[in-house]
Amino acid sequence: MPEESPIPARLEAFSDGVIAVIITVMVLEIKVPHTEGWQSLRELASPVSIYLLSFWFTGAYWLNHQHLMRRTRTAGHGVQCANLLFLCLLSLLPFSTAYVVDKQITGFATAVYISTLLVVAVAFLLLRLAVHRHLHRRQALTRDDFIGLRNQIVSMLIYAASGAAAFYVPRVAMAATGLLTLLWIFPNLTHPRTSERSEAAVGDRK
Amino acid sequence: MPEESPIPARLEAFSDGVIAVIITVMVLEIKVPHTEGWQSLRELASPVSIYLLSFWFTGAYWLNHQHLMRRTRTAGHGVQCANLLFLCLLSLLPFSTAYVVDKQITGFATAVYISTLLVVAVAFLLLRLAVHRHLHRRQALTRDDFIGLRNQIVSMLIYAASGAAAFYVPRVAMAATGLLTLLWIFPNLTHPRTSERSEAAVGDRK
Amino acid sequence: MPEESPIPARLEAFSDGVIAVIITVMVLEIKVPHTEGWQSLRELASPVSIYLLSFWFTGAYWLNHQHLMRRTRTAGHGVQCANLLFLCLLSLLPFSTAYVVDKQITGFATAVYISTLLVVAVAFLLLRLAVHRHLHRRQALTRDDFIGLRNQIVSMLIYAASGAAAFYVPRVAMAATGLLTLLWIFPNLTHPRTSERSEAAVGDRK
Amino acid sequence: MPEESPIPARLEAFSDGVIAVIITVMVLEIKVPHTEGWQSLRELASPVSIYLLSFWFTGAYWLNHQHLMRRTRTAGHGVQCANLLFLCLLSLLPFSTAYVVDKQITGFATAVYISTLLVVAVAFLLLRLAVHRHLHRRQALTRDDFIGLRNQIVSMLIYAASGAAAFYVPRVAMAATGLLTLLWIFPNLTHPRTSERSEAAVGDRK
Repeated sequence: MPEESPIPARLEAFSDGVIAVIITVMVLEIKVPHTEGWQSLRELASPVSIYLLSFWFTGAYWLNHQHLMRRTRTAGHGVQCANLLFLCLLSLLPFSTAYVVDKQITGFATAVYISTLLVVAVAFLLLRLAVHRHLHRRQALTRDDFIGLRNQIVSMLIYAASGAAAFYVPRVAMAATGLLTLLWIFPNLTHPRTSERSEAAVGDRK
Repeated sequence: MPEESPIPARLEAFSDGVIAVIITVMVLEIKVPHTEGWQSLRELASPVSIYLLSFWFTGAYWLNHQHLMRRTRTAGHGVQCANLLFLCLLSLLPFSTAYVVDKQITGFATAVYISTLLVVAVAFLLLRLAVHRHLHRRQALTRDDFIGLRNQIVSMLIYAASGAAAFYVPRVAMAATGLLTLLWIFPNLTHPRTSERSEAAVGDRK
Repeated sequence: MPEESPIPARLEAFSDGVIAVIITVMVLEIKVPHTEGWQSLRELASPVSIYLLSFWFTGAYWLNHQHLMRRTRTAGHGVQCANLLFLCLLSLLPFSTAYVVDKQITGFATAVYISTLLVVAVAFLLLRLAVHRHLHRRQALTRDDFIGLRNQIVSMLIYAASGAAAFYVPRVAMAATGLLTLLWIFPNLTHPRTSERSEAAVGDRK
Repeated sequence: MPEESPIPARLEAFSDGVIAVIITVMVLEIKVPHTEGWQSLRELASPVSIYLLSFWFTGAYWLNHQHLMRRTRTAGHGVQCANLLFLCLLSLLPFSTAYVVDKQITGFATAVYISTLLVVAVAFLLLRLAVHRHLHRRQALTRDDFIGLRNQIVSMLIYAASGAAAFYVPRVAMAATGLLTLLWIFPNLTHPRTSERSEAAVGDRK
């Protein structure tokens, strides 16, 4: 009875909706400066940079969410709850972004911001483990699954280090976080072989 | 003529969209405090807690909405209207959340907040009954349907009691509501046997 | 070549998304009053009523959008543009709602609000005609199509009359508009026979 | 293994969600004027015009996104990243719209606004090239693809010229941009033969 088993179609649709709103409402936090001309653009440089960092962080997690969910045909209750927890913590990002913009990248505010990124990474790790546990019952995990897991744990350690460093060198910690986020866009960090194969495969679109 | 019968595909997509926006715009209500450092985090404790409660309340209803809608292949006009009523009342939650945050969990504001949760629960009960009525014409209701119905009525009574208690002990009523919301995350409260079966079943993903 | 012909799948998904955001962001316009207790609820009565009216207006159009789009398997460029125009004018509703709430239901503001509803109705009429024109090339229009068309023209006349009356009796015009919007929820106004049939039909859910 | 290859279903759903939020939140930037009656409408003329321009700009890109994505059955990592970049830059449009409204169409603000449109056009060109590169490996590009490419490059040059002219004649540059955006609604500019064929074809809706 396929209609009784929780297929991840609505889970994906709901996640896409929540992530789409999160990634977009952050732009509402960028306030129009009171100054005119080039001076106003200079004032916008730092809010817009932080916005772009938050956008790409969310975008990278959306890409990884897509790759993770493609692994499973069904989603048990554990995956559903881990997914809600991930969305819940990710939804704090617009606030953290507004916080660090408002406090102008002070040490404390930057640490709060990077902690949010770390907490989202932990929630995604839980989601990843919930999917692995769900998969494990019916098929073997692949090498890719473990590479993704390893890379995520490494990046969590870097987030934690950046968060600690933020108290002393906030702008350096912010730059390190931005660099790490950009790295996650590259496919071979999270799903090395899938990306190669998918370039070659011509799958039929439903 | 399948295209003429109102299949719930768009109903689900629209509901997912509305719930995704509701669950996310609430975070816009959390204002950046004027204080600095740890003091600012302490001021955020209560707005963030209420936000998390509203998030999980909405998330739990989304999970239950998903389970309820999986029961039916078609959606008559009654189900459509009951669904719109549910979304309408749920959409008041961001305002109620802003209200209780702004009034700092006073007795009256907490009662208003918990009343909103109660009113959403009543609307979901109507939606549940509309789906049961729709189903009843062509198949027997299962034991699960009645367990879900019973549990929802019990939780509505607890919301009503918490709402009344909020006038005297607002923070205790808030904590009770939070606990009740957490309970709804557990699968065996609303769909005990479906969840067991779905863990075992390997349904084909469309 | 089905992939080249503009199937309305994304048109529906995009419309659902836009309508879901429109219907939900309106609640952000309801401001928390500065007064306490029951007094604050009394101040909320009129913003919340207007919000509910806007919600059900949008909800009724979403229902009709769903019924209209189910008539066609493909969507030509004319339907796409008419749909964008409909969404464009509907997206002005959150502003109109904020406007009439801010101006406290004065004659002029109510006329502006009801004019927005009228303009949305005109855009939906254009969308309906675009779909009919698209359908006409390959199948006969049904009696239902003409009933829907007639009822919409009648309701547009009532909106126009309410808009004119709003200058003199704003609250009466508002109540008339609310009543008309509620009527559109009833299925036999827009698609009398489809709704009967769909209650009887057990279509297979995809 | 179709489930392993990145089909653009979620890419489309996510893009639809993000574009739906972008196109709708812009209306939140239109503030209710403090004046009354017709005077207030006159003050709204210019914010509402700019809002409508931003709406149709976004709507035209959504239409083109839909046509572009229909060309491919799969989406490699390059397409995914180009799509995220396009959404990222498009998400700056609500801010640019708020900026030019707040600065009341001064030369500098208009140049900033038109630059945003230009930057979005560049990102869409990159997305188009990423899709062409992806397609090129398995099928020949059609005449339509090159017409779309040529027209987009021409319109980018016009945006660039309007942006430069905005410093001297902001309102004229704005009008030229609006005219260009309206032209993009016409189908034969971007996909001349597809639109003709699709009018004739009766594709089966999934």
